[in-house]
Amino acid sequence: MKKNQDNPYDALERIFHEPNRLAIMSAVCAADNGLTFNELKETCGLTDGNLSRHLKVLEEAGAVNIDKSFMQSKPRTTVTLSRRGLKRFHEYLAALSDVLENARRALPAEKDSPAAMPFGRTVRA
Amino acid sequence: MKKNQDNPYDALERIFHEPNRLAIMSAVCAADNGLTFNELKETCGLTDGNLSRHLKVLEEAGAVNIDKSFMQSKPRTTVTLSRRGLKRFHEYLAALSDVLENARRALPAEKDSPAAMPFGRTVRA
Repeated sequence: MKKNQDNPYDALERIFHEPNRLAIMSAVCAADNGLTFNELKETCGLTDGNLSRHLKVLEEAGAVNIDKSFMQSKPRTTVTLSRRGLKRFHEYLAALSDVLENARRALPAEKDSPAAMPFGRTVRA
Repeated sequence: MKKNQDNPYDALERIFHEPNRLAIMSAVCAADNGLTFNELKETCGLTDGNLSRHLKVLEEAGAVNIDKSFMQSKPRTTVTLSRRGLKRFHEYLAALSDVLENARRALPAEKDSPAAMPFGRTVRA
C-alpha cells in the first residue's frame, strides 16, 4: 500500500479495516482477560474456519496473542490484545475517524444545511 | 456477505469500505458538478488503471454515473454521484460511525478513564 502522508486514506491499516477483523479487535479490546475462541466465534458471528483465518492475520501482525491451554482436559484457545495491537488499533481508529469526518463534510445533505434532507440537492437518478 | 441486523459490522458495505473507493466517493460527493477522470486521479492519488477499476465497481453498483464526452475534440470522462449512490453512501457512513463508536468504547484507554494513557491498563507485550 502506498504511504502518502497527505492522503488520510493511506492510514487505514488494511489489517484492521476488514470488517470481521474490526469486529474481532473490538471484542478483544473490550474483554479485560481476553476471549476464548468460542466466545469470539459467537460474538463475531463467524465460522471456525473464518475466525481461524482472521486470527492468523492478526497474530502474524503482532496485534493479538493466542494461547492454547487445557481446561479440565479440554483444549482451550484464548485470544488477548497485545500492547502493539492496542497501539496500532488506536492509531487505526484515529485515522478512521478522520476519514469519516472528511466524508461527512463532503455529503451534500450535511454540507448544505444541517436540516437538509439527503436528497435536498439535485443529483442524477 | 451475510446480512445480520444484530451485527453492525455487516452493514459496512464492502463497495464503499475499500479505502480507495471511500476516497473516490468522498471526492465525488464534495464536487457539485462531478469530477473529471483526471481530477479524481489527482485527488485520490491513483493510477489510471486503479481508478478505472474502482470506478467500474462503483458504476456497476449504481453509485456513480460516468459520462464520456468531447471537449475541444478531446475525450473527457466525468464522474457524478447518483441518487442511489448518495443514499447508500449515507447509510454506509452511518454504519461506519456506529462501528467506530463501538470500537472506541471498547478501547481500554477510553473505557477506564478519559485521562488515561493508551497503556494505562496492563496488556501483554
